[in-house]
Amino acid sequence: MAVYTEVSDEELEEFVAGYDLGAVVSCKGIAEGVENSNFLLQTETGTFILTLYEKRVDPDDLPFFIGLMEHLAQRGLACPTPIHGRDGRALRELCGRPAAIVTFLQGMWPRRVAVEHCAQLGEVMARMHLAGADYPLVRPNNLSVAGWRPLLAASAHGADDVKPGLGEYLEAELEEIEEGWPADLPSGVIHADLFPDNVFFLGKQISGIIDFYFACTDAFAYDIGICLNAWCFEPDGSFNITKARSMLSAYRRVRPITDEELRALPLLARGAAMRFLLTRLYDWLHTPPGAYVKRKDPLEYLHKLRFHQGLSGPGAYGLD
Amino acid sequence: MAVYTEVSDEELEEFVAGYDLGAVVSCKGIAEGVENSNFLLQTETGTFILTLYEKRVDPDDLPFFIGLMEHLAQRGLACPTPIHGRDGRALRELCGRPAAIVTFLQGMWPRRVAVEHCAQLGEVMARMHLAGADYPLVRPNNLSVAGWRPLLAASAHGADDVKPGLGEYLEAELEEIEEGWPADLPSGVIHADLFPDNVFFLGKQISGIIDFYFACTDAFAYDIGICLNAWCFEPDGSFNITKARSMLSAYRRVRPITDEELRALPLLARGAAMRFLLTRLYDWLHTPPGAYVKRKDPLEYLHKLRFHQGLSGPGAYGLD
Repeated sequence: MAVYTEVSDEELEEFVAGYDLGAVVSCKGIAEGVENSNFLLQTETGTFILTLYEKRVDPDDLPFFIGLMEHLAQRGLACPTPIHGRDGRALRELCGRPAAIVTFLQGMWPRRVAVEHCAQLGEVMARMHLAGADYPLVRPNNLSVAGWRPLLAASAHGADDVKPGLGEYLEAELEEIEEGWPADLPSGVIHADLFPDNVFFLGKQISGIIDFYFACTDAFAYDIGICLNAWCFEPDGSFNITKARSMLSAYRRVRPITDEELRALPLLARGAAMRFLLTRLYDWLHTPPGAYVKRKDPLEYLHKLRFHQGLSGPGAYGLD
Repeated sequence: MAVYTEVSDEELEEFVAGYDLGAVVSCKGIAEGVENSNFLLQTETGTFILTLYEKRVDPDDLPFFIGLMEHLAQRGLACPTPIHGRDGRALRELCGRPAAIVTFLQGMWPRRVAVEHCAQLGEVMARMHLAGADYPLVRPNNLSVAGWRPLLAASAHGADDVKPGLGEYLEAELEEIEEGWPADLPSGVIHADLFPDNVFFLGKQISGIIDFYFACTDAFAYDIGICLNAWCFEPDGSFNITKARSMLSAYRRVRPITDEELRALPLLARGAAMRFLLTRLYDWLHTPPGAYVKRKDPLEYLHKLRFHQGLSGPGAYGLD
């Protein structure tokens, strides 16, 4: 649940006057997303999303994110397209914050993930990886393996309150992941946060991918690992191999997965589980009780981490 | 900040299929309002507001509210018009809650109230009072004078923690208000919650009035008293007599204010201040600290209550 910044009607009108969008007709704060303030903006010419970037987003990263959406949209990927102001800039300022207007995408994210959703996701994720290949900017993934030890250290004091023995378990697990972490896998731009609520569907077709604010340059297969965690576990915790197979098969039809990537997949998925476990644990321990933010359960990802840890190979993901 | 109920895409599609609105194209929770869950719904045929009525609204009152919006809209007042399902019903059910779809109104509510806003408000409020004259349903105002003593009793234990001496002051003040409360003033349907965030403007023109979920049958002048409090005080606490005069003059041009109403106005405004002070005080003392609701400061209304208490007559509102 979001909207942190209240934008006055006067400030908004002045801001929108800097674009060729006509006058503001309506603007409503959206109760989704937790990182930024998002508004559904209607002007005389159409519907848009207005985003004010709050303090969890580093302003230095914004040109990478905005430029990436523009790059991918130009290559036909359904994602928000940044709108340029009369001054040519897509990244501007409102209420003392960096702000951007992007196109509005139709569709809804799936509350209950079906096999067909996973197949669509695999295909579009692969197309996104290919479309980003010639994106000139680079952004290191500061939430990959090198970032996890400091994150764990920042939460070590409270880990055992969340679950007895959790601190020690994560310490040992992290050591194994660090040792085995693969180098030199095929890399490029990855989304790095491709959860169901960032993927819109109209019927069973993907109508858009949103929220590129964790996008970075990293191994493509790590993006796949994130999606195995986010899309292929059932609410009861069981792993749905049919969903995984559909996602991976559809992905492969667009961009072949190398043998090296396949072999690395269990460890990458394990690392992806570690990443979300650690950020959720950090937020769990550092969010003041009165804050207007719903905290996500870190232990959901402990369960996923253990699943991948117990695998002997990528066959468990339904691949031949 | 709202949206309490998460609606799945499947439930939503099935619900909307009960209307002649075409398929769902998008649905976003709106981060405004605290009583209900509101969504901005786009279908193939247009933009609408979907509301799920949460537990603070009595289901038995919903036919009054829904019927009133329909009645007023038919008489040309800019307010949401309930959409009827194929079965003829405007009040239906979604996710186990009463739910309705109403038309979407363009416009934005004024964050900084100007004199012109107050003049527009006076005119449209008077038109609303006239348009409601032949509305056949009746709903007693359970938040008028008879409801204040039980509200005060429910907060008496904590009033002095909010401000020392507050409990005793309110007790004495309530006694005076009860004694002087006028009977037999011109009555009909009033909005009873006509704060700036319930009034949309396009430029300086009102484009719509929303949120009729406190509407009831009561003295018209009590609605005026509520608006004097909600629109005519500056952020620094000073009373802006120019705003009050503009509002009342514009109101009178549409519906004359009787001498009896005029004389009663200071006490009605005082009562209106008491009403919002008491509900805010109640919420202040009874909202758990972790709740996703922003509590409003009750003492803002103590200041307004004292202002009206000190008046010798309605001249302070700028009337001749």
